[in-house]
Amino acid sequence: MSLIVTGSIGIDTIHTPTARAENVLGGSCIYFAAAASFFSPVRVVCAVGEDFPEEHMAVFEQFKIDTQGLEKRAGSKTFRWAGKYLDNMNDRETLDTQLNVLGEDLPIVPESYRDSRNVFLANTHPAGQLALLEQFPGARLIVADTMDLWINTANDELNTLLSKIHGLVLNDSEAALLTGESNMVAASHKIIDLGPKFVVIKKGEHGCLLNHKGSMGVLHAYPALHVVDPTGAGDSFAGGMMGYLANCDDIDERAIRRALAYGTIVASFNIEAFSLQRLTEISRHDIDQRLDEYAECVRFD
Amino acid sequence: MSLIVTGSIGIDTIHTPTARAENVLGGSCIYFAAAASFFSPVRVVCAVGEDFPEEHMAVFEQFKIDTQGLEKRAGSKTFRWAGKYLDNMNDRETLDTQLNVLGEDLPIVPESYRDSRNVFLANTHPAGQLALLEQFPGARLIVADTMDLWINTANDELNTLLSKIHGLVLNDSEAALLTGESNMVAASHKIIDLGPKFVVIKKGEHGCLLNHKGSMGVLHAYPALHVVDPTGAGDSFAGGMMGYLANCDDIDERAIRRALAYGTIVASFNIEAFSLQRLTEISRHDIDQRLDEYAECVRFD
Repeated sequence: MSLIVTGSIGIDTIHTPTARAENVLGGSCIYFAAAASFFSPVRVVCAVGEDFPEEHMAVFEQFKIDTQGLEKRAGSKTFRWAGKYLDNMNDRETLDTQLNVLGEDLPIVPESYRDSRNVFLANTHPAGQLALLEQFPGARLIVADTMDLWINTANDELNTLLSKIHGLVLNDSEAALLTGESNMVAASHKIIDLGPKFVVIKKGEHGCLLNHKGSMGVLHAYPALHVVDPTGAGDSFAGGMMGYLANCDDIDERAIRRALAYGTIVASFNIEAFSLQRLTEISRHDIDQRLDEYAECVRFD
Repeated sequence: MSLIVTGSIGIDTIHTPTARAENVLGGSCIYFAAAASFFSPVRVVCAVGEDFPEEHMAVFEQFKIDTQGLEKRAGSKTFRWAGKYLDNMNDRETLDTQLNVLGEDLPIVPESYRDSRNVFLANTHPAGQLALLEQFPGARLIVADTMDLWINTANDELNTLLSKIHGLVLNDSEAALLTGESNMVAASHKIIDLGPKFVVIKKGEHGCLLNHKGSMGVLHAYPALHVVDPTGAGDSFAGGMMGYLANCDDIDERAIRRALAYGTIVASFNIEAFSLQRLTEISRHDIDQRLDEYAECVRFD
């Protein structure tokens, strides 16, 4: 079933305690789309500037991403981000943000995309997410991501968004900020009360927590030994999850849990190298193999 | 098979953001022993002062704890601790510590305890743990806990201890301090290199990680909605784990994982009330029932 993601494409410069990558491909949209592509064809709605390097298009091609909705905007510049990971490889500082085309009009959704059945609204201003959501009248599954900035500055629009989506994906500090609850189980219940049928709270190296209509599920992360670059972990997690769900007839709790396990595994590959590098090297077979290994890791019967 | 724990008994005063408990029974030894008692008879080696309130002995009786090794030392005072949990109910500040009897000679191990087959050396100075360990010549399973204080101040003794025990249980910040690794998978491998066959790294609300001879296991914590008092969570976790293992013929990876799941569940009950209160209200049946519920929570097949 068709899957679409709306989000950002960026040029990233990433510093880690031991290495650095300059001007590499990044942004929520490409991490999501690459991850989802192992499970389902995927469409993107995003904008880049006329400075967007042609060589990066090879990545879209490799993952067979439908780029009809990738707008190369004349007179605009591509979003740029630079960040530095601290020694724990979990916390990071933003060194530079140049919104560029992300600060302009939303990209246009091609007419041919309006029949999309599964929609992921990657993190952007909730007013923008609402405007995009309206363009997919036939969607059967709409999931959004958000962040602290919008919780703090656009709470009304965010609440409207929450009343219109099926699922929300956010990290633990954002869930605490949104609900005022430091206990993530309590926070997840409060989010369900705000509208979504399910919420996924991401906890980085600790895994994630699912609340589906009040019923809890928890998954520990894959025990990753070599973390090179955590950038895109959350987006590739969401991509793996949504890619799997796009193929499910019923979006029930069982399907979502399986989807979260797949998201966990794709993210565990993604962090093994800078940018999209590691995802370009693996196949669905590698993902299934690691999922089996992970299932062994969490057994206690 | 016989199980023994050496550790502290204390009188605690605990402040949480919403409540307070004064002069309640605490200490690693009693949390461990109460938790273990659901699975196995348990012996304790510990010392209290002559001020130890007689009413607390009822708790030992309820859990059928063998108190031959509980020394009530004339002229001494019981260990006292006061602490305050922060809003997240995970971090805490120590308000007061009165070592009292814990700062004196080690308690004497009764002759009748020297045949103990399963030994847990709860957190104390590693020199003390080494001295106690020597008194159980027939032990087939020796597991120790430690803390940042000893990693910083008694590293040589701790290294000797690590070469003589089968398992180590410690929390994530302690594992990072001990190994210089912020990645817990890497830290666990370094600890295995120091001697133990297995290490369990506790991550509080996030669960735990097992490294058994290089093979990894991970368990998310039980998704607890109502946390009243986290004191003793780690000790009741270890007690549930060791109580289960005391009944296993083979201490292999499978047995340890099952033991960790039981530890997870006992700890999840323990934090639902102050001191030992919640453990006095439950039965082995309640533990098994919640284990089944937890097993459902982590499924993704």
